Amino acid sequence: MNQVDIQLLREIADLERTPQGAYNIRKNGQLESRSNSANITIESKSDKPGIDIHIAPGTKHESVHIPVIVTQTGLKDLVYNDFYIGEDCDVDIVAGCGIHNSGCETAEHDGIHTFYVGKNARVRYVEKHYGEGEGTGQRILNPQTVVYLEEGAFIQLDTTQIKGVDSTKRETKIVVGPHAEAVVNEKLLTHGSQTAESDMEIILDGEDASGRVISRSVAQDSSQQVFYPRMTGNAKCFGHVQCDSIIMGDAKISSIPAISANHVDAQLVHEAAIGRIAGDQITKLMTLGLTEEEAEERILNGFLH
Amino acid sequence: MNQVDIQLLREIADLERTPQGAYNIRKNGQLESRSNSANITIESKSDKPGIDIHIAPGTKHESVHIPVIVTQTGLKDLVYNDFYIGEDCDVDIVAGCGIHNSGCETAEHDGIHTFYVGKNARVRYVEKHYGEGEGTGQRILNPQTVVYLEEGAFIQLDTTQIKGVDSTKRETKIVVGPHAEAVVNEKLLTHGSQTAESDMEIILDGEDASGRVISRSVAQDSSQQVFYPRMTGNAKCFGHVQCDSIIMGDAKISSIPAISANHVDAQLVHEAAIGRIAGDQITKLMTLGLTEEEAEERILNGFLH
Repeated sequence: MNQVDIQLLREIADLERTPQGAYNIRKNGQLESRSNSANITIESKSDKPGIDIHIAPGTKHESVHIPVIVTQTGLKDLVYNDFYIGEDCDVDIVAGCGIHNSGCETAEHDGIHTFYVGKNARVRYVEKHYGEGEGTGQRILNPQTVVYLEEGAFIQLDTTQIKGVDSTKRETKIVVGPHAEAVVNEKLLTHGSQTAESDMEIILDGEDASGRVISRSVAQDSSQQVFYPRMTGNAKCFGHVQCDSIIMGDAKISSIPAISANHVDAQLVHEAAIGRIAGDQITKLMTLGLTEEEAEERILNGFLH
Repeated sequence: MNQVDIQLLREIADLERTPQGAYNIRKNGQLESRSNSANITIESKSDKPGIDIHIAPGTKHESVHIPVIVTQTGLKDLVYNDFYIGEDCDVDIVAGCGIHNSGCETAEHDGIHTFYVGKNARVRYVEKHYGEGEGTGQRILNPQTVVYLEEGAFIQLDTTQIKGVDSTKRETKIVVGPHAEAVVNEKLLTHGSQTAESDMEIILDGEDASGRVISRSVAQDSSQQVFYPRMTGNAKCFGHVQCDSIIMGDAKISSIPAISANHVDAQLVHEAAIGRIAGDQITKLMTLGLTEEEAEERILNGFLH
């Protein structure tokens, strides 16, 4: 790994060195390095690109890192990663993709992740997306995330698109079983002429299922964002969707949620707001000695972190 | 007019006798009676069914009643009503349609209303929809409402579907000019196996345009409701959409709003909630001596009125 690789890994996975525990690092469509632990095994798929991650029942306080880096202009990387998480686990999974494109061709990574979360297991999934490079080539990331939560299972998805991604189409689908819970924290920043679309479907399928989506976004310059968060209640359940967006420059933002109750005991709530940074917030920070740009940056950092 | 007609007029327009001021009563696709005032003239269209209503600039504290009743099974009534409201008016327009279907064929009324609201004019538009009759024939109401608000104009739409309408598809479009304001209060109750769809589009097109939608609905039995309220901000503007629904029995409700900001000073907010009547509300009223059914009815009346 060279300096660019190390810089990308730092951005997307907070990694300064080889991660502890199980990991799989993918670079330019190839396996770069891998490590298993006693409870976590990673195997390459035989029929298509990608890996199967098996986490033994009862595994607690362990983590898996599966970062992907793309530094080759013109590469279109497609990968299928399937996670089998045993009953009663409590684990962290850290994914993420960084693209450094210094060429003039498109560099693209499409990661299709499927999670089978066993009874009463708890999973925290962290995914960061980042792009950089002086090339004129596009940096494209189209993640697809599908989650099946068995009875009493819990997942928290913390997904962040930091910056530098020219085009993204995010698709997320979570089927929540009885007494299970899904929490999605989505953070998205677009700038320049970037476009982002996030299509999310949470199906509260079992009795006492619950779901919560907290989506925060900032659209700068002439970038465009569209959000489609959908929450469907098919049983006694509780669902809450909250989307807050800050609009700047000549950007455009659409929020098109859907809440659908198919059961008399489904309780669903949605809130969305789009607006610019309040002028008095800027003024307050400027009286403390910050320039207007610094004040703005401080507010955006607070909003997205 | 017979007893059925008078009963329908009472339900949809609170009319006990011939209304004061200008009016146009339509029965089974024909003109029943009409009256103009000094400032308000109603004329039948020559090219298609319907009327043109001209309200002279500066007309204040006057009203127009244009109720429609359908008592003939098998009738499909389609009508185009265009309202030209002069500058600086302040008027009430009371529409509404009642269907009494005692036959086995479908009775349907589709009213297409277009409002051209002049500078600084204020309009309150009240529309009630109601169906009754022992026949097995369907009662269908598909209203289409289009509003253009010039600079500084204001419209408030109070639309209510009381009961007895088997199928409705409501379409509303409002284009809001500079310093103009649109307020929509929508109330909808469905029961039995009724279906209702409400498609609404508010376009905040001029500087300091504002829009507010307050939609309240109750779905009982196995009825189904779908709401598509859309608010688009193309200038410095403020828009607020609020949808609250009570679900009962085996009903299904979907709320699919959209807020779209195409301007950095567009501020848009949306809130939606679907849920059943809170159990403790029922209990509280029952301790005051009401039966469960009476308590439920009291709560629904409070919610919809």
